[in-house]
Amino acid sequence: MYGPGDVRVEERPDPVIINPTDAVIRLAATCVCGSDLWPWRGTDPLPQPRPMGHEYVGIVEETGPAVRNVRPGQLVVGSFMASDNTCPICQAGYQSRCARVEFAGAGGAQAELLRVPLADGTLVATSQMPSDELVPDLLAASDVLGTGWFGAVAAEAGPGKTVAVVGDGAVGLLAMLAARQLGAERIIAMSRHESRQKLALEYGATDIVTERGDDGVAVIKDITGGLGAHSVIEAVGTQESMMQAIRSARAGGHVGYVGVAHGVTLPGEELFYAEVHLLGGPAPVRRFLPDLISLIENRTISPGKVFDLELPLSEAAEGYRAMDERRAIKALLRP
Amino acid sequence: MYGPGDVRVEERPDPVIINPTDAVIRLAATCVCGSDLWPWRGTDPLPQPRPMGHEYVGIVEETGPAVRNVRPGQLVVGSFMASDNTCPICQAGYQSRCARVEFAGAGGAQAELLRVPLADGTLVATSQMPSDELVPDLLAASDVLGTGWFGAVAAEAGPGKTVAVVGDGAVGLLAMLAARQLGAERIIAMSRHESRQKLALEYGATDIVTERGDDGVAVIKDITGGLGAHSVIEAVGTQESMMQAIRSARAGGHVGYVGVAHGVTLPGEELFYAEVHLLGGPAPVRRFLPDLISLIENRTISPGKVFDLELPLSEAAEGYRAMDERRAIKALLRP
Repeated sequence: MYGPGDVRVEERPDPVIINPTDAVIRLAATCVCGSDLWPWRGTDPLPQPRPMGHEYVGIVEETGPAVRNVRPGQLVVGSFMASDNTCPICQAGYQSRCARVEFAGAGGAQAELLRVPLADGTLVATSQMPSDELVPDLLAASDVLGTGWFGAVAAEAGPGKTVAVVGDGAVGLLAMLAARQLGAERIIAMSRHESRQKLALEYGATDIVTERGDDGVAVIKDITGGLGAHSVIEAVGTQESMMQAIRSARAGGHVGYVGVAHGVTLPGEELFYAEVHLLGGPAPVRRFLPDLISLIENRTISPGKVFDLELPLSEAAEGYRAMDERRAIKALLRP
Repeated sequence: MYGPGDVRVEERPDPVIINPTDAVIRLAATCVCGSDLWPWRGTDPLPQPRPMGHEYVGIVEETGPAVRNVRPGQLVVGSFMASDNTCPICQAGYQSRCARVEFAGAGGAQAELLRVPLADGTLVATSQMPSDELVPDLLAASDVLGTGWFGAVAAEAGPGKTVAVVGDGAVGLLAMLAARQLGAERIIAMSRHESRQKLALEYGATDIVTERGDDGVAVIKDITGGLGAHSVIEAVGTQESMMQAIRSARAGGHVGYVGVAHGVTLPGEELFYAEVHLLGGPAPVRRFLPDLISLIENRTISPGKVFDLELPLSEAAEGYRAMDERRAIKALLRP
């Protein structure tokens, strides 16, 4: 990306092994993330051109001499944050904040090849070479599914719970899928886009609420006997969506927020008296990957349906445009 | 309280049963709360004179016709928030946010008599008439012990955990006692007052850190291998103390905040990348009261030591002054 609205596909030097714990993978598929739209729109500053993309599934091409857990020829999925998966933070399940964390997308996953640091702690191989139709599902696990799943876990979605989801992008939709898999009783999608409502219902939403902000909060209160939802997943990252999420939760309830916060400030007094659990941040996707890959391999879940546009990598810019204009939920790119 | 620095002890009409679920109690002891100092200092507005006090232990004098669980003659302790203890929020353990919640101190507990609403859901009787020396301990259970305990529970203090406590007032000190009772491995008191450090150590603190703000955070990181504490309890309520608490916790750790927030705004981006669990608010003391009363009755804990000044009720103003000037941790008042 050279600047707002300016994405170019160019020849660049092939990535190589730098550290003994690295792997280089040949991408089977990659995609455009909602968070890639922040610099595309100029909301995030872009001081210099940057290789883009941090979601990936691919075949291991080469591994550094210290890599033990994956080997060339395997199909692997990894998180956007590289982690050693052995430090105390990783062991507690917060791999995205690993003591040795590195951004796995530094080299740009919207490419043919990607160097992944800390390969042993970051990459998870499929049990066998999956059929090509599962590639979009596995790609989703790399970020949007893992992020939605973390949101649902952070919000303690589960049996007997009423779960509200703020945001109907890929992460929000997959948070609904996650809440369903986790056994939630009622899943309320806060969405006003018809195509997304359809996928929401397919993924397990039981109710659609089209109102936003405090009007949306009022509807949630209304359908929960005045109390609010047990669990709320925030998957946008704006001030309005965060306050909508906090206000939609009942006292003692849980808010899992996974939309990357932009310009958000939380009023301390309101938060104090709201008395809700808050947990959010960059999802520790690695924690969930083995389970998510199993669920995909045995076809229990189809998270790849969020990709409603598929393009060759050479047309990456059109993927950005389509998502920015909300013509597509999420664009998959084939190198 | 008539205004900042102006507390008067006056004759007022005796409280009476208004609702059938009310009880009137004759106070054995009451006290001045750290939160009472906000209006005393003029930080909280006081549009008109207000009866003060919300911490109480006393003998039931009279009950309304609907009251079943307590009877005249029993010694009872209750929370500062009256709750029915039957609604879904209470059943989930958040009685301070009960669907029918009322402030139990509306009539002013710094008095001889107090009307307590929702008596059945609010008051807990001791198993027998305790000796007078336990009265300060039982009084502490009404708020500061229950609040410190909630802070420790919200911060998930427990076996194997390193717990940092921001604030060395009565609540912070009793949060240390709670963390100890909950089995925490290491308890770090952030305190720079010698008399409070002494009680902190007596209550179970294993380390004293005198640095504040980001210097304090650096020391916590230092003694936790660079990671931060597993659990942090915030017991002040200012911007500085909240940020100190959040920054002292490791990724994936838990912050329990029980200092009543004053002028606090939390930066969303920092909170997102901190990736800590946050839970706070007015403590659901009622959840803990039966256990706390047992621990006091069998003399496992002595929370009443936070009362380092005892005065007759008629000298209430001196209690406020002594606490404001930090000559006393907490002032007990005997009617």
